Amino acid sequence: MLQQQFDALGTRPQDSDSLVVGVDIGGTNLRLALADREGTVLTKWSASTAGIRDANVVVNLIRDGVTDVFQQTGLSRSRLCAIAAGAPGVTDVDRGVVIATSYLMGWRDVPLRDLLETAIGVTAVVDNDVNLAALGEYWAGAAKGTSDFVFLAIGTGRGAGIVVNHRLHHGHRWIAGEIGYMLVPGVQEEAAGLGMPGPFEAFAGGAGIEAQWRSHPREGVALPANPTATEIFDLALAGNVQAQNILAKAARTLAYGIYNISLILNPPLFVLGGSVGMHPVLGEETQRILAARGSRAQPLLARSLLGAEAQITGAIWLALETANALASVSK
Amino acid sequence: MLQQQFDALGTRPQDSDSLVVGVDIGGTNLRLALADREGTVLTKWSASTAGIRDANVVVNLIRDGVTDVFQQTGLSRSRLCAIAAGAPGVTDVDRGVVIATSYLMGWRDVPLRDLLETAIGVTAVVDNDVNLAALGEYWAGAAKGTSDFVFLAIGTGRGAGIVVNHRLHHGHRWIAGEIGYMLVPGVQEEAAGLGMPGPFEAFAGGAGIEAQWRSHPREGVALPANPTATEIFDLALAGNVQAQNILAKAARTLAYGIYNISLILNPPLFVLGGSVGMHPVLGEETQRILAARGSRAQPLLARSLLGAEAQITGAIWLALETANALASVSK
Repeated sequence: MLQQQFDALGTRPQDSDSLVVGVDIGGTNLRLALADREGTVLTKWSASTAGIRDANVVVNLIRDGVTDVFQQTGLSRSRLCAIAAGAPGVTDVDRGVVIATSYLMGWRDVPLRDLLETAIGVTAVVDNDVNLAALGEYWAGAAKGTSDFVFLAIGTGRGAGIVVNHRLHHGHRWIAGEIGYMLVPGVQEEAAGLGMPGPFEAFAGGAGIEAQWRSHPREGVALPANPTATEIFDLALAGNVQAQNILAKAARTLAYGIYNISLILNPPLFVLGGSVGMHPVLGEETQRILAARGSRAQPLLARSLLGAEAQITGAIWLALETANALASVSK
Repeated sequence: MLQQQFDALGTRPQDSDSLVVGVDIGGTNLRLALADREGTVLTKWSASTAGIRDANVVVNLIRDGVTDVFQQTGLSRSRLCAIAAGAPGVTDVDRGVVIATSYLMGWRDVPLRDLLETAIGVTAVVDNDVNLAALGEYWAGAAKGTSDFVFLAIGTGRGAGIVVNHRLHHGHRWIAGEIGYMLVPGVQEEAAGLGMPGPFEAFAGGAGIEAQWRSHPREGVALPANPTATEIFDLALAGNVQAQNILAKAARTLAYGIYNISLILNPPLFVLGGSVGMHPVLGEETQRILAARGSRAQPLLARSLLGAEAQITGAIWLALETANALASVSK
């Protein structure tokens, strides 16, 4: 089904009454949106997932959210055709199973699609959250109209959503785009354990950037002890040398990663997303380092247009495509 | 046209009298084969290209070769439907232009397709030689039946032919697979000039491996002064420590490259080709290093089945597909 998600570009479920729900499952927040057949968001709902590791608790929250958005809008629940959810980890789209999330949530082989179908009572489809964000940018964001691009999500960790010839590329074992483990000059070569942060994200992911700050003695006394990665980039702009060093290392690591992906796939466009990836100074520094490598690989770098809405936008579109495929089959 | 090369899997030119020519243009040799509509090779021809940098001279050689294979077989030249040629460099398939070959040949923006069509008088199609080798392995070699795989050609230099969802992936600027410039731990980070050997191939390409040997003082007196890369691997197997160090560095660099490609594309299969890539000890060492990195990226490594015939086999198939597409259009 997902293999066809890009085939029916622009088509919509046949029934104009159809509604769908898109869900973004994050390590700290669960976000949910009800949308009509045009993809217009009718209402939203969110809840905290901080400290929740049990997938059944997350599914029950989603069920409550679905009930809530129909109560909020007064629309009939019977109009719900499909639900799509993005999970923060490696996801087997065919089986609907989240194989492994990051070390923060610790999910292993969670049959999320079946759990959702049982709890909500409609067709469900699941994918990795970064892939859904890429799908969002492809349909309605910075990659609209592009056949090939790479979406780089740089938040707490990092991952890539890869679109080749108008399709999400998932890979043989669903790990395509798991670039947090990429090996570039300067990173630690020792193998990271499964589910642990990778060597690449240690320098160029949010958690890694923050850990680098904490591992160095403070300069001065007025500086924050535990700044976020974006605050560290702001400190770099304000002239803090330690922050500038961390920024330089993050930008160099990111530039090398983009360079390697360019040599392999040569996409015309990279879209930088996630709270860390969207900080302008990271994009500027990365572009400067890439430019110094000559003309061989000079992809266009663009910032995400959808920002924090990318995942849920992709989820809505995937749910619409799923509803549409169901309508085609039932005709 | 090439975009459809994989679409008509198994189909053949309509006219059973159709013949095609496949050409493999190398830095030292030019090889040419006449084949029937089943892809069966009827006869071959070859010539030296050592020292030849002028594309017109190469095209004249190909014209002579085409004349020769028809004379050899006594078949009618009028049965020739298409010719496909692989060039050792970045090739714009749509325009039929070889944008840049390696430093050895020094071609820049050579309109090879037009030159061939003028010289031979039939429809011509051109692509990068590594892409054609991948196509050969896909049709008749180690990747038969696989929708996605990466062919790694390791000879003098190195490059990758990438097949995604049954199609060769060329990339935006035709440089997809130019992995000789990939940045992995241990390589030199400074940018290499256009057309110069890249940092990755300095360790894991034939010329780079041979240069490393020459840059170290000899052990003993009976050893060759200028061994080839495969001879260096043989010396490593025979216990030569310097050769073992060079092999270890080549295998580690290759393993890191395969690991990075696996994280990005996650293909089920890598096919190792080229004279250096097919040496068993390189594949074994590389597999051992990959295995030590854990379960995240464990692609199957296979040796090329076609060996030195991979490029010309791919050229024959591409010529057949081209002839077939022409026959479909003319119906």
